[in-house]
Amino acid sequence: MAPSRKSRVLAAAVQAPARREPAPDEASRLDFDVLNGHLGYFLRRLQVQVFQDFIRTLGSLDIRPAQYSVLILIEANPGRSQAEIGKALNIERAALTKMLHELEDRGWLERHDSIRDARSHALFLSRDGENALARAKALAQEHERRMEALIGSKRREMLMELLREFG
Amino acid sequence: MAPSRKSRVLAAAVQAPARREPAPDEASRLDFDVLNGHLGYFLRRLQVQVFQDFIRTLGSLDIRPAQYSVLILIEANPGRSQAEIGKALNIERAALTKMLHELEDRGWLERHDSIRDARSHALFLSRDGENALARAKALAQEHERRMEALIGSKRREMLMELLREFG
Repeated sequence: MAPSRKSRVLAAAVQAPARREPAPDEASRLDFDVLNGHLGYFLRRLQVQVFQDFIRTLGSLDIRPAQYSVLILIEANPGRSQAEIGKALNIERAALTKMLHELEDRGWLERHDSIRDARSHALFLSRDGENALARAKALAQEHERRMEALIGSKRREMLMELLREFG
Repeated sequence: MAPSRKSRVLAAAVQAPARREPAPDEASRLDFDVLNGHLGYFLRRLQVQVFQDFIRTLGSLDIRPAQYSVLILIEANPGRSQAEIGKALNIERAALTKMLHELEDRGWLERHDSIRDARSHALFLSRDGENALARAKALAQEHERRMEALIGSKRREMLMELLREFG
């Protein structure tokens, strides 16, 4: 038997607090169709989020993720060439050339003639570059701790392990 | 007792085939220092590899990953606004404006006046856009199968599951 109008109205009133209007966000949630099957889409989505937090966190130093990687590699491997750094980090030649010029303009980078290869320069951090990178490393650690809190330490470890295998 | 010079020379000669000179690649393998502790670095590294394969695979259509995502979302959600598409895909306004103009110039996109919001346009794919996207989807599937073969189907599934959680 169908419930009376009164009982339906009462039921609706009683249920009202439990029912909720979709938030504007949910109401406009879109269909992602075949994107749901693409690893690249999900990789990119989390990567952009992580990079946005990194850029915000290191904003006071104006150091972006790719610059950070380059500074780290030059400090940890002093005297290497642009080609070696670019290959290790999979950065295109033109992009790396531009970035190295910017870092040199900031006084963070020194180029010396290479002993091993007369056609290339050996890259080193200046004292200022080392100091800037020390501050950047401290902020990057802050960023990493926030990512760990967001993602969960165990999940982060699983992700890192899976991602490390494809280098 | 120290081995005689002769026995040392002999031992070296005998061991020689087992010893190997590091390949040029290995000799120049660089120290990644604290990058090894950054999730963002590993996310980016695999993402770049996956995107490079995607771009190569869809090269004949000249459709890049972000364009592909936008086309997919417009097809699956006809009539949505630029703001909605941009928000769903986390694409900055200026970048999306430029991309939509390019897609319009190719004749793949149509903008109609929005019924819901007079200040925005409703986005649709044209017939040509639908045809191009159908070809793109077939190539993207090819790309995805290649990624699965590279990464391993089980590992890919684990990665996707972990990545999906952070949307």
